[in-house]
Order: sequence, then C-alpha cells, then structure tokens
Amino acid sequence: MVEAWRTGITTYDEKNIWIRGYEVGALMQRATFAETIFLLHAGRMPSQQEGKLLDAILISSADHGPGSPSAATARLACSGNRGSVSSAIAAGILAIGDQHGGAGMACMETIAEGVALAKTEGVSLEAAAEMLVDAYRARGERLAGMGHRQHSTDPRKAILFGMAESYGLAGDGVRFMLALEAAVAAKVKPLPINIDGVLAAILYDLGFPPIMGRLIFIIGRTAGLSAEVAEELAREKAMRIKVPVTYDGPPPRDLP
Amino acid sequence: MVEAWRTGITTYDEKNIWIRGYEVGALMQRATFAETIFLLHAGRMPSQQEGKLLDAILISSADHGPGSPSAATARLACSGNRGSVSSAIAAGILAIGDQHGGAGMACMETIAEGVALAKTEGVSLEAAAEMLVDAYRARGERLAGMGHRQHSTDPRKAILFGMAESYGLAGDGVRFMLALEAAVAAKVKPLPINIDGVLAAILYDLGFPPIMGRLIFIIGRTAGLSAEVAEELAREKAMRIKVPVTYDGPPPRDLP
Amino acid sequence: MVEAWRTGITTYDEKNIWIRGYEVGALMQRATFAETIFLLHAGRMPSQQEGKLLDAILISSADHGPGSPSAATARLACSGNRGSVSSAIAAGILAIGDQHGGAGMACMETIAEGVALAKTEGVSLEAAAEMLVDAYRARGERLAGMGHRQHSTDPRKAILFGMAESYGLAGDGVRFMLALEAAVAAKVKPLPINIDGVLAAILYDLGFPPIMGRLIFIIGRTAGLSAEVAEELAREKAMRIKVPVTYDGPPPRDLP
Amino acid sequence: MVEAWRTGITTYDEKNIWIRGYEVGALMQRATFAETIFLLHAGRMPSQQEGKLLDAILISSADHGPGSPSAATARLACSGNRGSVSSAIAAGILAIGDQHGGAGMACMETIAEGVALAKTEGVSLEAAAEMLVDAYRARGERLAGMGHRQHSTDPRKAILFGMAESYGLAGDGVRFMLALEAAVAAKVKPLPINIDGVLAAILYDLGFPPIMGRLIFIIGRTAGLSAEVAEELAREKAMRIKVPVTYDGPPPRDLP
Repeated sequence: MVEAWRTGITTYDEKNIWIRGYEVGALMQRATFAETIFLLHAGRMPSQQEGKLLDAILISSADHGPGSPSAATARLACSGNRGSVSSAIAAGILAIGDQHGGAGMACMETIAEGVALAKTEGVSLEAAAEMLVDAYRARGERLAGMGHRQHSTDPRKAILFGMAESYGLAGDGVRFMLALEAAVAAKVKPLPINIDGVLAAILYDLGFPPIMGRLIFIIGRTAGLSAEVAEELAREKAMRIKVPVTYDGPPPRDLP
Repeated sequence: MVEAWRTGITTYDEKNIWIRGYEVGALMQRATFAETIFLLHAGRMPSQQEGKLLDAILISSADHGPGSPSAATARLACSGNRGSVSSAIAAGILAIGDQHGGAGMACMETIAEGVALAKTEGVSLEAAAEMLVDAYRARGERLAGMGHRQHSTDPRKAILFGMAESYGLAGDGVRFMLALEAAVAAKVKPLPINIDGVLAAILYDLGFPPIMGRLIFIIGRTAGLSAEVAEELAREKAMRIKVPVTYDGPPPRDLP
Repeated sequence: MVEAWRTGITTYDEKNIWIRGYEVGALMQRATFAETIFLLHAGRMPSQQEGKLLDAILISSADHGPGSPSAATARLACSGNRGSVSSAIAAGILAIGDQHGGAGMACMETIAEGVALAKTEGVSLEAAAEMLVDAYRARGERLAGMGHRQHSTDPRKAILFGMAESYGLAGDGVRFMLALEAAVAAKVKPLPINIDGVLAAILYDLGFPPIMGRLIFIIGRTAGLSAEVAEELAREKAMRIKVPVTYDGPPPRDLP
Repeated sequence: MVEAWRTGITTYDEKNIWIRGYEVGALMQRATFAETIFLLHAGRMPSQQEGKLLDAILISSADHGPGSPSAATARLACSGNRGSVSSAIAAGILAIGDQHGGAGMACMETIAEGVALAKTEGVSLEAAAEMLVDAYRARGERLAGMGHRQHSTDPRKAILFGMAESYGLAGDGVRFMLALEAAVAAKVKPLPINIDGVLAAILYDLGFPPIMGRLIFIIGRTAGLSAEVAEELAREKAMRIKVPVTYDGPPPRDLP
C-alpha cells in the first residue's frame, strides 16, 4: 500500500482548483502573478505593498544578459538541442548554485544568525553584527551579501531599500544588513551590500525562510532564461557556439 | 577569434541594467513581474490590460498539486537529492513536454494555420475551422486544445475569455478557437476547449509566436514547482517515496 | 489504489539483485560494463564480439573535448554551481538533441525504412537506397548520417566497420549505409558516411531499435562529461567563463 | 578577448581524436569502455585488473529497479515528456545527491581523513579508526558507508572486496573500512559496511579523489536510467502515473 502524498498547497475537483484555499479563478481575476507566488510560498495573500516588493525582487533577478552562467548554459544547451525549450531552461537553472544566484540563501542564514544572536545575547543588532564579523574573521569565512562583482554601487540597492522603508516593511533584515555593512567597514574595509544582500534582507523582512533566497532567484531568472532561449532560437543557428580550446595534456602516445 | 554573442534583450554597465532599453530600477518601481515577462519576450511594455491577462495566464499555470508529472518529478528528485533546489525544480521542468503542458504550443500552431487558411482562401474563420477539422480527420490527427482531462468544464475558460473580451483584447485567436469548437461539435462530437486551448487563443491574440505556449507554461509552473519543493523539504523526509513495483522479467538464471 | 509499476529489467530481495534474471554479483565478476549495458537494453547477454562492438561505440562517443555543446554546457553549469556534479552532468546531457548526438537515431530510422522498403518492394538494398535518395530529394529532406562536420574522413568509420565485418556482425545496417553512400554519390555528390551513420549501422545490426542511437550516445558521453566536470573543478575557478556579448537592442528609453 | 578553455583530456584534428594522448581508434579496438572511463579520469590506462574492478563497480551501480529515486524520477519525467530521452535521463541524474548515491563521496572523504590521521599521529589504521569513531560520536555525526537500507548483508561486498584482494589491489581504503567496521562494532553496535562504503574503499585504493565516489555512481546509473526510460517508452502510456494525494491545507475561502 502506497502512502498518499500530503500537501497543503493546491487541491482541485471536477470544476475548481484552489491554491491555499483560494479559487484559482478568483486569483486570476484579482491577484498578480507575484502575489500568487507569495501566496504559494507563504500560505497567505500578501498586502499590496508586500506584493509590490516581491514584484521588484523578481524583476531584479530576471535577466543579466546572455553572459551570465545560467543564460549562457541555457543558450549552449539550446545550440545542440533546439527541439526542447524545457531542456534549455532546465540546463540554465542547473547553473544556479552557490557561486551564481546562491548568495541570497547564505545571506539570509547570516541575518537569521545575527538576529538570533542579538536576542540570545540581549544586545543590539549593531553589536550582534560586530560579534558576527569577529566570528567570521576568526574562522576565516566570507560573509555572503557583501562586496560586488559587476556593479560598484548597485542601483537596485537604493530602490529596494527605499521601497521597503516607504512601505513600512523594512525590519530586522534591512537593519541588520546595514549594521553588518557598518561593522565590516569599521573592522575590515568598506564593502557595500550587494544585490544578494539586499534581496536577502527584504525576503527576511517579508517573513521568508533562507531557502527562499534561492527559490525566488530561480523563479525570477526563469523568466529571463525563457527570453534568452527564445532569442537564441529566433536569431541563431544550431551548433553556432564555438569555444576556443587549448590542449595541454599528454602528446600522442601508444597504448601500453 | 570568438564571435560575440548578440542580444537585444539586456545590457548593463557599472551602474545600470537595461531590459529592452528600460532601466531595471524603473521597472522594479513601476512594473509588475508579469509585465516584465511580457517585455522580455515581446520587446515592448504591455498595456495594463495585456499585463493583467498575462498575470491570469501565469496564475492559471502555476500549480495543479503534487500529482502532476512536473510536481511529482520535482518532489521525487528532491527526495534523493535534498541539497539542491535548483536540481529539483529543473527535474520538474524536464517533465514538461508534448504530453504535459505542451498542448498550448501545438494549439497556437493550429490557430496560426487556421487564420492563415482563412486569409489565403478568402473565407471566414468559421469556414477555415471547418476545413481544418476535415483535414485533421482525413489525416487521422488530433486537434490540440480540445477535450479535457480532469475538468469537464474548466472554470478558467470563462474567466480568461471574459477578461479578454472585456479588455477588448479578444481577436482572431479567441474567435478561431470558438469556431473550431463549433466545427468539431457539428462534424465530430461536442468537445470543449480545454485550458491549453484557452491559453493558446489568448497568447495568440497578445501577439506571441507558438513557442510562447510552452515558455509561459514553464515560467508559470516554475512558481508552483518551487512551492512544491519547499513543502517537500519542510514536511517530508529524504527517500520517503515508495513506488510499488511488479517484476515480470525473466526468472533467476545462470550466465551463459 | 495505485497501480504497481511493471518492469522486466531489475528485481531484488534482501540478499540479491538480479538484472534480466542474472545475479548482479555474477555479472560483476564475469561481465564488462558494456556487456551489462547490452543486457540492460536487449534483455540478453551479448556474445563476446557483440560486447566488444558496443565497447567500441561507447568509447567513440565518450568525449570530443570541452568545446562540444554537451561538454561546454556541463562546464558552464559547473562554473556557477560547483557544489553539484549531478547538476553539471545533467546540464551537459540536456545539450544532446537533434543537432548534437542526435543523428544516430534519425539514421537508424532511415536504415529501418530502407530495409523495409527492400522487403516490401522485393528489391535489393542497393535499389532501395536509390529509391530512398530520390524520395528524400523530392521532399527536400536531408539524410542523417551522411556528411561531416569536423572530420573529412572520420578515422572511426574504418575501425568500426572493420570490427563488425571481422566479427561476422555486419548485416543489413552496414550494407544499407554503404549502399546509401554509393547512391548519394551517384545521384547527388560524394558525401561520406559520418560517425553517426557508422554507429547507426552497427547498432541496427546488433538488433537495437532507433532510440538506442540516442541512448548509447548519452551513456557514452556521460563518461566524458564526468571527466570534463572533474577537470573543471580541479583546474578552474568559479565563474571563470566570460562570454563576449554585443547588445543590439533598443537604446535606453523611458517607461511609457 | 576570450581566454581559451584549457584541457588535458581530449584533443582532435581533421583525422584523429586523442584521449589523454591515445588515439580513440586504438582505444576502440583494444580497450573496454570501463578502461576508457578509468583513463578519462585518472589520465593513465589501468592495468587489466584495475579495469575489471572498475567494471564491477559500474555494474554494481547500474540499476536497482524502477523504484529507486533516480529511476522513478526519470520515468515520471518521461511520462509527461515522451519526446526527449535526454530530458528523462537528466531528470533521473538530478535525483542523485546526498541521500541517493551520495554516500560514496562522503565515505571516501572519511577514508582520506582516517588514513591521514594514522599518518600524522603515527598510529595504525585500526587506532585511527577508533579515534575517528570517537570524534564522530562526540560531534553527533553519522559515518557514511556503514549500515544498510535494503540489504542486510549486501552480496556485492564480499565480491568486490574479494576481487580487490585477489588482484592485489586492496590497500589502505579496504583496510581502513574494515577497521572502521570493527571499531564501530566495538564502540557502538555492529553495523555492516554497505555498498557505498565498499565502492568508496575500492575507488580510494584505485587512487581516485572523493568526488569519484559520486561521478562513478552517476556514470554507472546512467546505463540503468537509459534502460528504464526505454522500457517506459516501450511498455507504458503517457501520463500513466497516478500519485495518491491528500490535501490538508486551508479549506476554500474568499480572497481578502
């Protein structure tokens, strides 16, 4: 006998589908896709402002051009296998991990650690941030969400923090990341919060667990991967991508 | 020398990212995620009503419970490989194809064929629909987008067609699918337009090529797969899924 | 009540595992991996020479350097997501399709079509090959398995056909491909059988259905993808791959 | 300017392909697929006995029936997406991770840790094994490669250790795992080495790094996934798999 799979997300009968208890037809008429993504993951409808913040986060993650590892992977897969767009998009998603799109989750764990530390030690978030910087330095570990790759002052930071503040939705997440930025500047060197850190702070303040740092990036980026694959199919030929290769292995030799 | 990859979608410099020419920061503040998906694929911002229609389509595709092939595949992959949510979501996307989530693309091709036929033959969409039904019957082929699997009268049909009509966005796609439904009922048997046919009609009227039938389903469903995987990780143990198996191959035997 | 999944491949109890009826322990001691791959797919143990031919085919498919779409895709996925080798290898496999590693299946279908034509028309394989060339030309279709991409005279052709001949395993598949090569040369232009055509001919003569053309390529190539990913992890840094990109989309503009 | 990708594995010119310096044609005639897998990863040809051991390991990993997470995932993906065997096999590989097929890598790391400990502390492997058991217990961590899931006395253990011993290839890896088994029995409770531990010991003694524990399982299992997918396509219908689902989320409710 097989055990039934349990779910609290979606159910349906002959005539209806309900997501977290809401008729899908009602959602289609009255909700946005971002609000539905919030509902699917949080189990409750967001306020309008929470929905707008999630929209902004998803948009900020959607695309960074064909050269990002996820988009380049999707295009390369498409180049050999033009018949399956799901294969190309899935290949792109598989390039998302610790080094690409992955810092959000690690940073949300750091925020959770810092906020918990402030509580258990009875200190301010600022003091907890300083303790955490010391602890990470002592262990020789890098703090996720700080420092930049392509953008020295990421334009998305001011916008997202500004939206969160003006909506009254900035909480411990945003405050802790700002405290962390100050603590790092004081104890190590000036290192700005990057986009991963910004998204982590806001997703934390929206009440999501660390794994959402990765899931939301994947959902947002799927939109961009889809457009990249559609453009590859529309504009390029199969097998068009040439990679320059240098061989530095053993010279020709005979089998033993 | 490696040829540069061309793109018309996204570019960036030190300080900004532009999607189809619009600053990502402006999009984050003023657009929805669905509008950005529209922009990424169509190259232009949708009207507010086009955006709402795309929201509705994405919501309608998002989740159908853990038993759909894509969600079940994602959960099973997660069951053996809990460390990588991108792996689980990608596995779920790989279950999307001709038999699952794939009818939209085929149906958009049928609509395009029918609308073209009406033009080249100088006949009405209704007459073209009848010609197409005859042609498909003669070739013994099935028409995509007609007939139901789980829902005898899919609640999403009336809602989406109603939204498209009230927004003034219903065009040849919706009209042709309704003509096709009538032609099939007259010539074969009553067979309702299913959700794939509804989405196909509306995506056609929004100006998208057939491949969008599949791409939009993938984007929408990724939101649901993400929630399914998050629930699997939160509520279930590794390796919990048992599949009942009957072996009917050769009995034990000795190697030759 | 859930229906049990049926299988004729593998079963096990507390103490043993049987593949197609043979104890896995006996296979481990007395069979090669290639013979086991033959057994898994054909349901019977191969002769020693059939096993050697399959070894040769698998080896010929294993690797073609980091620039092939599958290997490049695997390495790119690894570049962003170093934590999961299964993700990188899976991404590489997703690049295998009609344009890359896919011609074998199409060619096996052509061989089956040609051999069937010879039988139903009561003509020689040579005559059937000529009929097929005429039919494909009339339809404007390309014949799979003919013509080269990187190798003008693929070294693997003489070796595989030679092994098949000397083992007495060359049959209708090899004979039909040679007849096809002659018919194309006579009616169109000289176009050598390529590696896909060679593998297709031999897999056909080993008794496998067309889909094995793709499956065997995937199994063989997985060995190479694994080595490519291992080398990427051992020698390269995360995010090291830069793709040159030219943007040719709309210039910066204001939202409507 | 794009940097060339470096590789020491495979190169080719118009007429030849070389793997680690050996002509692929020579390998096809004289090597087995398993020996080529060894060569691809180790950079040298194995002895005949090393090749046989790798054959045995690959065979032992190939298939465990349709109910294993990887095979079930591949079949489910195939059920919705019958057109792409590469998608189904890739989905199956994505189910391989820490909980399924992943213990080999962890166990190889433990072996490396134990052997290094014996050296740095100047003690026997037996003493190092006892120190490691104490350390793991103190940290509350599980030892990989010990304890069984489906097989109380895995038949593959005696065969693989026996082959390794008779070939003179059993070294520190095998010896350390036996010492670990004894130490666990003395300090905790009798817990047999499982198949992951057996493979790990032998791969260690063949000179491979820990990551090979996962790579070799993936290569071996791909052969089984291929057969599972071929059987699914040959014997079953699309969308045939039904998953029993119980919904325990919120009851129908109105949108706020």
